[in-house]
Amino acid sequence: MTLQTRFLDLKARLAEIHDLTRVSSLLGWDQAVTMPPGGAAVRAEQMATVGRIAHERLTSPDIGRLLDGLAGYEASLPYESDEASLIRVTRYDYERARQVPTELRTEMTRVASLSRHAWASARASSDFGAFLPFLQQTIDLKKRYVDCFEPAAEPYDVLLDEFERGLPTSEVRAIFTQLKQAIVPLIAAVADRAEAVDDRCLYGHFPIPQQREFCLSVLRRFGYTDDGWRFDPTAHPFATNMGLGDIRLTTRYYEDNIAVSVFGSMHECGHGLYEAGIAPSLERTPLCRGTSLGIHESQSRLWENLVGRSRAAWTCFLPELKAAFPGQLDSVDLETFYRAINKVKPGLIRVEADELTYGLQVVLRFELEQEMLSGAFPLAELPDAWNARMKSYLGVDVPDVASGVLQDVHWSLGYVGYFPTYVLGSIASAQIWDKALAAMPDLSAQIARGEFSPLREWLRQVLHRHGRKFTPKETLQKVTGSDTFDVGPYVGYLTKKYSEIYELR
Amino acid sequence: MTLQTRFLDLKARLAEIHDLTRVSSLLGWDQAVTMPPGGAAVRAEQMATVGRIAHERLTSPDIGRLLDGLAGYEASLPYESDEASLIRVTRYDYERARQVPTELRTEMTRVASLSRHAWASARASSDFGAFLPFLQQTIDLKKRYVDCFEPAAEPYDVLLDEFERGLPTSEVRAIFTQLKQAIVPLIAAVADRAEAVDDRCLYGHFPIPQQREFCLSVLRRFGYTDDGWRFDPTAHPFATNMGLGDIRLTTRYYEDNIAVSVFGSMHECGHGLYEAGIAPSLERTPLCRGTSLGIHESQSRLWENLVGRSRAAWTCFLPELKAAFPGQLDSVDLETFYRAINKVKPGLIRVEADELTYGLQVVLRFELEQEMLSGAFPLAELPDAWNARMKSYLGVDVPDVASGVLQDVHWSLGYVGYFPTYVLGSIASAQIWDKALAAMPDLSAQIARGEFSPLREWLRQVLHRHGRKFTPKETLQKVTGSDTFDVGPYVGYLTKKYSEIYELR
Repeated sequence: MTLQTRFLDLKARLAEIHDLTRVSSLLGWDQAVTMPPGGAAVRAEQMATVGRIAHERLTSPDIGRLLDGLAGYEASLPYESDEASLIRVTRYDYERARQVPTELRTEMTRVASLSRHAWASARASSDFGAFLPFLQQTIDLKKRYVDCFEPAAEPYDVLLDEFERGLPTSEVRAIFTQLKQAIVPLIAAVADRAEAVDDRCLYGHFPIPQQREFCLSVLRRFGYTDDGWRFDPTAHPFATNMGLGDIRLTTRYYEDNIAVSVFGSMHECGHGLYEAGIAPSLERTPLCRGTSLGIHESQSRLWENLVGRSRAAWTCFLPELKAAFPGQLDSVDLETFYRAINKVKPGLIRVEADELTYGLQVVLRFELEQEMLSGAFPLAELPDAWNARMKSYLGVDVPDVASGVLQDVHWSLGYVGYFPTYVLGSIASAQIWDKALAAMPDLSAQIARGEFSPLREWLRQVLHRHGRKFTPKETLQKVTGSDTFDVGPYVGYLTKKYSEIYELR
Repeated sequence: MTLQTRFLDLKARLAEIHDLTRVSSLLGWDQAVTMPPGGAAVRAEQMATVGRIAHERLTSPDIGRLLDGLAGYEASLPYESDEASLIRVTRYDYERARQVPTELRTEMTRVASLSRHAWASARASSDFGAFLPFLQQTIDLKKRYVDCFEPAAEPYDVLLDEFERGLPTSEVRAIFTQLKQAIVPLIAAVADRAEAVDDRCLYGHFPIPQQREFCLSVLRRFGYTDDGWRFDPTAHPFATNMGLGDIRLTTRYYEDNIAVSVFGSMHECGHGLYEAGIAPSLERTPLCRGTSLGIHESQSRLWENLVGRSRAAWTCFLPELKAAFPGQLDSVDLETFYRAINKVKPGLIRVEADELTYGLQVVLRFELEQEMLSGAFPLAELPDAWNARMKSYLGVDVPDVASGVLQDVHWSLGYVGYFPTYVLGSIASAQIWDKALAAMPDLSAQIARGEFSPLREWLRQVLHRHGRKFTPKETLQKVTGSDTFDVGPYVGYLTKKYSEIYELR
């Protein structure tokens, strides 16, 4: 076999595997958006089958032989080339996937499926005891999973690596410590001035069809097109895609609140723009997705918060929002609205948290995950540990486990090490924003005029188009000039923004 | 390996293959109903990948070895048992799939994809010459396909067998000759009395949301449930499913015509009820679908025509239709409406044909397909042959190829031998209806009262639950006591119905 034939063989196999992962995305999207409930049991089997076949194909020894045979070819090509990147990233995926025995993988899938159901009913009845045995099994499986890999400095490193490749726990711990030190006092200062912000204008009667139309008008300005995107209602919002020309966003609506759908849509649109911006030459390859959850979240947070919760954006959008809901917001001026959408309210629920308190919601989960893994306390005591930290970090009393430790689906699915990426994304979003401002000094003025394409095209150029060619750290280096998640710009942004809004000294 | 292990191994493999075929159904449904146009190119690749993997798995020598090892087990079990049926039908599928070399299969897929596009633009510009080379390639490939199998009495037998297993061309020819002899004079007699039926009440202004609600109310009476079905608008209506609890119907709406969506929905619902009625024990097996296109069409035609275009059904539905469109149909009585929905109008387009002339639309295609295959005329002369037969059978002048020989998508997809199943379905529907009447003498009275569940449950019991356990002929035998498509009941039904409506002597 010539090198060229060998490379084309690898590429064809990877294209098929990628087709299967996209098919899995469609199975998931359909399940959440369009499937009648009666399809659930068979759908679970279909998803398992497609996932299993994709995994079998990726871990086939043929892939290993092709990769071995292409090592010289890879070395002869520029690091950044599509070809060298494809070989390099596939080798990483292949070796990682082969570490975990099929038996363990099957068991993880089985337990996740049972655990997911147990969690839903345990949360419904606010009964931690009903979920405890499943959580125990999940943590035990995570330990076995960790043991499949070369020993790391800390066991949690292996779990984190699944979601944020190359970022050790020690680095995240240092980042989160700095973050905590900066925002705990900021939250306390804001709490003393709670009356400074009134968000009553966000509540009222906002019929859903008009909410949808307004959200779509915002999304279209951000980069949504009718030809290549969809926008549907769902219970738990997410973004996914079945191809670079088939990006799908979802959101949820509350008739009495205009903020949830609007900022949710902006958030998912950030995810969608990242995927839509990947170079077409990477389509149908494993490089055709965002490089990590953290970098992905940097894009959703950037569009939701840095853009979406700015004065500039609402200079453009507020008149349009008023027109969409005649008579409802006539007396609301830009400053009132801007403060309302940035109101700080320490609360119980992560997904309802404001920009400032969100970080602490994640820090406490990061700390508890490590403690569960190390056995720092019996798992039965997890609710006590949770409640104590909620009180200490956010001053909040947790009334029950449903709105406490059982609020998130992640652990029931076996996602341990996932939460930190939410805040890493916020941190990176501020680093990237600083670079965007340096490159486009009139960015705010553009946004105030409703011009979002310069920002979108800059992001595509420096970040989106690379897809998964580079590691998260390499990607961050390309965009910001530094390969570390630097908490400085994010703390600076939060401090400046909230000091001003709450008129802190 | 014990027999039991071997059987479970086979069953597990078939379950995965079935998952993949259901996934293909979802890819197709999504493409037609929800996918943004930008997803088309990648979707074609995804469908090809899933189809290829399913085919590879079905034709794997492992399946052959398992089947060989299970021959004794099969012989020891009752013919009707799930287990024996699974082995028997899988052996048929396996052997048939292995007859066609991968290279030919790939070429057929490739040509179909190109040809489909060529057909769409040729039809748009009404240019037969632009489609001719693709049709030529398709016919050439069909000949090569026929050569893959044991010689049959006629080459067309092999093509027909793909869609209606075990029914030779000679039998269809005899059936269609009888049908033609009966309905050509009937159509001529009706044409002389065209003024006897006035269908103007079907035209007006019928807003689509109300049409949808009315269609849904009909579907719910037939057996549609919100838990296990969906109902969406589409350009080319179809029914599909992703599981026994996930049945999906589509229809199209014209704002100025109430009949298209209503009868189209009833038709697709018949397909849906067949699949929804398959025994749950057959889920995730190759037995979990209707046994043939003809038997499937017997169900769609039964619900659309025997039920849907009956006086009894509109005794129940007409008051509801009037309520759905207040003021529009107030002066229309049952008899006028019944005649309107059964008006005979010989026309150019198959999918717009009435119940009486539909048969001849299909007979001419059946005849032309055989002539194309045998080379009875140069393919360039196909439009002339088409137009001559339209004139002779239906008295219609064809103004252009777009509304003539290029009207249907089937040949561009390589579906040669498919059309006859539409009429075979109509014929079987009348045979089955006679049996239903014998079993439930008060069937019409039930329908007039809006009670459809006795009919649905009877069909489930005698037909639906078997899925693909039995061949079409075996299935027909079970339902009607005869294993032949008998044109008698259908001709009797048409003659009685139209003689009465048109007051023929």
